Amino acid sequence: DDVTYFVFTSASDLHVKYKLGKTLLHREGIPESEWLELPVSHYRAANIRMMCDAIAYARSQGATSIEFGGEDGSRADVDYIAEIHREGLKAGGTRPSTPDTVGCYSPYAVREYIPKIKAAAPDAPLVVHFHNDLGIGAWNTVTALGSGAEVFTTSVNGIGERTGNAPMHQVLLQLRYLFGIEIPNFKYEKLRDLARHLERVSGIPVQPTEPGIGLNVFSHESGIHTAGMLIHPAIYQFIPPADMGAKVEYIYGKHSGAVVVEHALRGAGITPEPKLVARVLEEVKRIREERAERADFSEFHRNYYEHLGHLGLTAAEVVDIARAISADSKAKG
Amino acid sequence: DDVTYFVFTSASDLHVKYKLGKTLLHREGIPESEWLELPVSHYRAANIRMMCDAIAYARSQGATSIEFGGEDGSRADVDYIAEIHREGLKAGGTRPSTPDTVGCYSPYAVREYIPKIKAAAPDAPLVVHFHNDLGIGAWNTVTALGSGAEVFTTSVNGIGERTGNAPMHQVLLQLRYLFGIEIPNFKYEKLRDLARHLERVSGIPVQPTEPGIGLNVFSHESGIHTAGMLIHPAIYQFIPPADMGAKVEYIYGKHSGAVVVEHALRGAGITPEPKLVARVLEEVKRIREERAERADFSEFHRNYYEHLGHLGLTAAEVVDIARAISADSKAKG
Repeated sequence: DDVTYFVFTSASDLHVKYKLGKTLLHREGIPESEWLELPVSHYRAANIRMMCDAIAYARSQGATSIEFGGEDGSRADVDYIAEIHREGLKAGGTRPSTPDTVGCYSPYAVREYIPKIKAAAPDAPLVVHFHNDLGIGAWNTVTALGSGAEVFTTSVNGIGERTGNAPMHQVLLQLRYLFGIEIPNFKYEKLRDLARHLERVSGIPVQPTEPGIGLNVFSHESGIHTAGMLIHPAIYQFIPPADMGAKVEYIYGKHSGAVVVEHALRGAGITPEPKLVARVLEEVKRIREERAERADFSEFHRNYYEHLGHLGLTAAEVVDIARAISADSKAKG
Repeated sequence: DDVTYFVFTSASDLHVKYKLGKTLLHREGIPESEWLELPVSHYRAANIRMMCDAIAYARSQGATSIEFGGEDGSRADVDYIAEIHREGLKAGGTRPSTPDTVGCYSPYAVREYIPKIKAAAPDAPLVVHFHNDLGIGAWNTVTALGSGAEVFTTSVNGIGERTGNAPMHQVLLQLRYLFGIEIPNFKYEKLRDLARHLERVSGIPVQPTEPGIGLNVFSHESGIHTAGMLIHPAIYQFIPPADMGAKVEYIYGKHSGAVVVEHALRGAGITPEPKLVARVLEEVKRIREERAERADFSEFHRNYYEHLGHLGLTAAEVVDIARAISADSKAKG
């Protein structure tokens, strides 16, 4: 039981007929020429047979923990998903999984369909998997957990194809701060360090405004905000920074007010005489504007996108490799 | 009516008593020493008087379009918000606004409370304003629009204090792709260009997985995904890239499969012989791994955070400025 095997096929008609169609025909000895003529019902049945064969094979080889299900669940017939889950369990699978592969599920659909999917296999834990194409991968995950699902998948920093998977940090923040649900022994105060670590090993940066893990989450610049924060930190922040292993940061710039300058001076043992504060504030704003003009943001962003562009090879580079291999073969030929 | 004036006070007891308390006491000629003794009800009434005076003054100066309301609405008594909106309209305000200043509203609370807030001033357009601390600023905005609010505020790229405001692109994507609602004449296909422009002028980068506007939104690397996409692009993508002025991108790396390599070679007029494809694929994976080892991601990220850290001044820099000013005064003194 230490290893969970993953037997995954497709659930939507688009995937079952078009993506898997030819594979299913080969398996059943039907010529490829019949691909588009055969009805979807044919593929649905053949698809379940293929999945159940794979599950039974895994069982025969000693696997006892087998997750299974159909890809592209959010665009699939919910009754067919239920059938996949029932048949997979009968074949020896242990936990069904339904994914929102293209990230098009709405929270209203989650509340409508997850209970129906759960009802088809009420005794097995239901796994959900959301993508973030519309920016609601995390909230859909939380909604699914409130609608009958027991297991969720996420990715650290939300990395993954396209817009990535439901971001783990967002799911954890929503569960904790909207519903008071914490993962036992989870070190929330290490989430930001984990985010920085994954940035370093993946090369993929997190934007400063990213909930929980971004650089600016606990930062305040505007005069109204900083003045309020200095009366009581809860005035403009409901997540205690220490929960996330962070501290409140004040940024001094064009939106700064006198109160935060007084605070900085007092912190350094300087008496914040009103005249001095006014002059410092003026100077801060002047320097900030000067810096903005001097800073070549556009060059920074050129470098940024160049870095991102080099995290994989381009088609042109692939073609060059092929040409080099071909030329080399001919020379040796 | 070309200019909308904004008369804004606070709505939550925390803000009304603690943030605005001393200001309200000064206004009413009550000594500051009574600050903590006076009950919240005193501040609530004084706060509405102050707001209505400001609205009436704006009216007397000729303002005809006046937005008004109370900050920190998500932590305020909903009946007090209703009172603020009713009284503000009576004083001459034209549209009430209720903000989730600290970003702690849940979509369930939005569905519960926005109709009550709307009912207090049914004939005036209701403005909502959400923050993104839990990653649901956009979904809360959409939920509010479905619960009686007519006007929403967002920010381009989601910039703003802490985690920023509801990101405009996410609100627009959710309205369009979940509900089929489009903003008339809005150039959706320019959203990505707008995002790049704001990055250049603000210095604040968008992460590659950011919905709609990130670099990787239309990128596919894994063999399963790219093979599916080459059968039909809808298989792993429900937002047509052209809607957003983008194209599907294939990234070649360690997750690549043969089908996408065949595709790249065919595109360059090279016959994708299986043996060549296999060797190219091997080489692509080798180069990708070599590049990952050679690329100093940690240095990139040091530079990245250094750049972000220099978008404002630090407290230490502010203190240095104060010291320089003081020294200068003394020298001249």
